[in-house]
Amino acid sequence: MSLTIRPATVADVGTILEFIRELAAFERLEHEVVASESGLREALFGARPDAEVILAEMDSTPVGFALFFHNFSTFLGRRGLYLEDLFVQPEYRGRGIGRALLSRLAAIAVERGCGRFEWSVLRWNESAIILYEALGAKPQDDWTVYRMSGEALSRLATGER
Amino acid sequence: MSLTIRPATVADVGTILEFIRELAAFERLEHEVVASESGLREALFGARPDAEVILAEMDSTPVGFALFFHNFSTFLGRRGLYLEDLFVQPEYRGRGIGRALLSRLAAIAVERGCGRFEWSVLRWNESAIILYEALGAKPQDDWTVYRMSGEALSRLATGER
Repeated sequence: MSLTIRPATVADVGTILEFIRELAAFERLEHEVVASESGLREALFGARPDAEVILAEMDSTPVGFALFFHNFSTFLGRRGLYLEDLFVQPEYRGRGIGRALLSRLAAIAVERGCGRFEWSVLRWNESAIILYEALGAKPQDDWTVYRMSGEALSRLATGER
Repeated sequence: MSLTIRPATVADVGTILEFIRELAAFERLEHEVVASESGLREALFGARPDAEVILAEMDSTPVGFALFFHNFSTFLGRRGLYLEDLFVQPEYRGRGIGRALLSRLAAIAVERGCGRFEWSVLRWNESAIILYEALGAKPQDDWTVYRMSGEALSRLATGER
């Protein structure tokens, strides 16, 4: 079987949404998925894309994906590459496909002059953490991400206390 | 004294770099700052900006800033707003300036249809955490950020083991 990594095109939107749903199920977060094909089409392949996707294929069948965008480091004064999601179908795991996706992203980061390549992992996902540490990635344990959405976000936006 | 929040312009690059250095000193991370005025000019005000900045002014004197960019949620299928850095000069703290910057960012997030407003905080920064929780932000304690840079990044990019 031969593995190929390629940029996704608009024809892959259905596949990408299916993989997002499978990933959410793995993360036990299915209830959070509200993405739609039309929304993804615009967000990823519209006039001003918000993120990019690469696909992993085994003999031309998509078996995994990675979605990424650029973040920015004030200290470095330049952009970095942030991996938002990476997924390989369960039956294709253990064959280096996740690593191949990470390697391609690292190559894109280097090509584009990014100072850093970053991503987040669920603390209980031990097999992923073992891979990341073996590759030389460092956990940013001093930091906690805070998130605001819904009611709290609207309230803050209008300046209400 | 009157407080104004406004978008930064290219004329503010020197002020922004000074604030980045003051913030790094506060975070005990001065050694990590390699940003330059020319680099920031291109990254923030070039043909394709990587991030945006708003400034807080007291009677027309800049006293704080926030730098942000858009991230992307696969589950929501749309972009969010990510606050990379927020800083208010020590002698101006305790007057609601940080809150005013956060409120403006929340308003920008809502205007632009972002589903989430997110940022990171150092775990020891208790006064900031108290403010964030009071505003209704939720810590994403299940997640750890991993970062790869330098040698490890180059190695992964070239596919070496």
